[in-house]
Amino acid sequence: MADATDQRKPTERLAELIERQEAPAVQAFLASLGGLDTVRAVSHLAEDDLVALLELVEAPTAAELLERLPDDQATGVFEIIQPATAARILEEMPSDAQADYIGELEDDEARAILAELEPEEAREIRELCEYDEESAGGLMITEYVEVRSGRSIGQVIDDLQAGAEEYRSYYIQYVYVVDRKGRLVGVLPFREIVLAPRSAIVDDLMISDPVSISADTPLDELEHFISQQRFFGVPVVDARGVLVGVLRRRSVEEAVSDRSDETFRAVAGIVGGEELRSMPLRLRAGRRLSWLSANIVLNVLAASVIAANQDTLEAVIALAVFLPIISDMSGCSGNQAVAVSLRELTLGVLRPADYGRVLLKELGVGLINGCALGLLVGLTAFLWKGNVWLGLVVGLALALNTCVAVVVGGIVPLVLKAFGRDPALASGPILTTVTDMCGFLLVLSLASALLERLI
Amino acid sequence: MADATDQRKPTERLAELIERQEAPAVQAFLASLGGLDTVRAVSHLAEDDLVALLELVEAPTAAELLERLPDDQATGVFEIIQPATAARILEEMPSDAQADYIGELEDDEARAILAELEPEEAREIRELCEYDEESAGGLMITEYVEVRSGRSIGQVIDDLQAGAEEYRSYYIQYVYVVDRKGRLVGVLPFREIVLAPRSAIVDDLMISDPVSISADTPLDELEHFISQQRFFGVPVVDARGVLVGVLRRRSVEEAVSDRSDETFRAVAGIVGGEELRSMPLRLRAGRRLSWLSANIVLNVLAASVIAANQDTLEAVIALAVFLPIISDMSGCSGNQAVAVSLRELTLGVLRPADYGRVLLKELGVGLINGCALGLLVGLTAFLWKGNVWLGLVVGLALALNTCVAVVVGGIVPLVLKAFGRDPALASGPILTTVTDMCGFLLVLSLASALLERLI
Repeated sequence: MADATDQRKPTERLAELIERQEAPAVQAFLASLGGLDTVRAVSHLAEDDLVALLELVEAPTAAELLERLPDDQATGVFEIIQPATAARILEEMPSDAQADYIGELEDDEARAILAELEPEEAREIRELCEYDEESAGGLMITEYVEVRSGRSIGQVIDDLQAGAEEYRSYYIQYVYVVDRKGRLVGVLPFREIVLAPRSAIVDDLMISDPVSISADTPLDELEHFISQQRFFGVPVVDARGVLVGVLRRRSVEEAVSDRSDETFRAVAGIVGGEELRSMPLRLRAGRRLSWLSANIVLNVLAASVIAANQDTLEAVIALAVFLPIISDMSGCSGNQAVAVSLRELTLGVLRPADYGRVLLKELGVGLINGCALGLLVGLTAFLWKGNVWLGLVVGLALALNTCVAVVVGGIVPLVLKAFGRDPALASGPILTTVTDMCGFLLVLSLASALLERLI
Repeated sequence: MADATDQRKPTERLAELIERQEAPAVQAFLASLGGLDTVRAVSHLAEDDLVALLELVEAPTAAELLERLPDDQATGVFEIIQPATAARILEEMPSDAQADYIGELEDDEARAILAELEPEEAREIRELCEYDEESAGGLMITEYVEVRSGRSIGQVIDDLQAGAEEYRSYYIQYVYVVDRKGRLVGVLPFREIVLAPRSAIVDDLMISDPVSISADTPLDELEHFISQQRFFGVPVVDARGVLVGVLRRRSVEEAVSDRSDETFRAVAGIVGGEELRSMPLRLRAGRRLSWLSANIVLNVLAASVIAANQDTLEAVIALAVFLPIISDMSGCSGNQAVAVSLRELTLGVLRPADYGRVLLKELGVGLINGCALGLLVGLTAFLWKGNVWLGLVVGLALALNTCVAVVVGGIVPLVLKAFGRDPALASGPILTTVTDMCGFLLVLSLASALLERLI
């Protein structure tokens, strides 16, 4: 790795070589970098340099580079690169990746690229694109070996040898056995082929009635499925039982991991897809702002509670010091409960209807932590101003509001999920608004009730 | 699935069957539930019922149930179950899972369980436990097929056939070829065995000088490694080149996904491990409180800025309405930047030394979004009180503080990473404290400078 003072150099040197159109030098330079440094150098390139790079290098190298870039950056490339180049690169990718990239494009962009491919390949990609991205059909690959029922092991081995070149990049832990109509009737583990005589018939060795999944199985079920099964891959069939692809464990795991990255982004207010600092400023600022603007409305709404109780605040100005503390601490407590609910929903140990359980479990935590935090803050207030009533007001308000926050935080994700909304995206803002309003109201009405003791 | 009114029933029915010690009825009931409902029913069991369940069912079923429970819950079980039962269940698990569970236990608990296992198996688990959990050694499995260099394909096939029963649960896309001293000299793809005559010698067919990784390779590098390679598994060697295990892609992906779950938890303030609502209340409240208490100190620190400027606030009480807004909005803006930095660090497109790049990139977003948000809030203030100076003070303060927040939010994770701290855990609290203090100071000093215009 280059040292810190020299940090921008790989990208700059790469950009220079690209501008000079020196293909061999570029290839050699990329090879010399290796590892994460390649990803870093390439991902920091300006978009036009990146496109120039992909047009410059061999298609297999270009495909590899794209697969190693962050998804959103790679997808962006396909929107602006020459269709012929895009097609050449796509040909080097497995079918699931092809469908992912094409599926992200506008119709006319996709058509332009598909027109450059062999009609058969274009048709396959188009078919794959029709499946939901987060379903077995959207995640499967179509590179697998299929044999007709009734064949002998000898014929299978001959077929394999004949197609050896093509099959090398295939998923072949199993050979899939289909009937005349293409319906899956069995799977033949590769190791059985090793151990059987050439004359044996596939049907006698295969596992009949094999486990398969339907192409429209959604990701939730797939995640659960792979957690129970040890397969590296499982055959995917359509509604008529026709074998249409193979779903690899790896693809499901990647999709699950992508989804949890998305959850993480949503919680932090990064919406509209992954943000990388190599993206245009306008896009980055705009996406972030769209979430912030919604938030600011909620914030103003919450603060209006303070505005409405300004008299009390004016009488006991010390309360103004504690309003942000109560707002922030309740937000923190509530967010912990949100995180636990999101996690339990993902793990499947919690269902959207489990309100009662969450309410009880969170109330326990709320009471304990509310008392502890309320005591801390109340004591601080008392020590600062020497007024025990001030301590009581802010302490009690925080204690009660902590209970509200954990219960709301625990339940809001369930409600959103039940209504088919993304709990990760909206739980935080809803929680904060509720706890802020409730917290401000508690402090200011308690203070108003005890006003004579506070002044 | 049962309907909402009947939601607790599976767990209760299961608990009842367990108490009656009706093993066949329990097995039948679990089978009838299937899918996520089993996970849910079992994970909601009280701890002693869960232990009773695992002692009641067959060891393979118990192993399967444990592997499907959330990790922390499964680990907890091993701490309290009878060592003999634990050993019986462990025997049904792959070596990496065995080492994970044993590695989490106290020394004496682990010893008690290992004493119940065959000495050879116990020794293997102990060896696996010595590797760092997030290294190739800690993630590899030891169930693989190894053959000595110089053998014929016929001998290999005979060996495979002889061990067929044991090998069925093994990872065998490859057979690993080792020399006399156990050092890895080649890998033999299973499909080559299919296509070769019995008389062929392993050494002539194997891929010599195969890709392998060192047992101490850390997870970061493994993640990058699997993103570049298409292997389902890769041989793991020790410092002398001796084959010690096979690392499956799946294990790396699971470890990566566990780590990102941990990041997510850390950001939300769930510390000390995963929280499930089935855990004891004391543990849940205590862990959450430990993080909240640190936060409250930071909060009081930030609020002390308000206390120090109480005169200004007293003079212009309307400002008190905007302090929580500025605190919260700056926190939101900063957290977006934190999320982008965490993600870029994970993807490897950002290094801890890239301060300059982050500063520039964030400043752009900060200026645009700061102006937009400042304008919105300033306008709100102006419309509310009809005082343009009030609008100017709060708008300008929010605009400036947004710039501070995104820059601090973008850079803090890099600093923490550079110092070897967990950026996910500490970035949020540090960010909030800095932006709160800075935001309150901006509002109150601007107001103090323009005090005559505001009253």
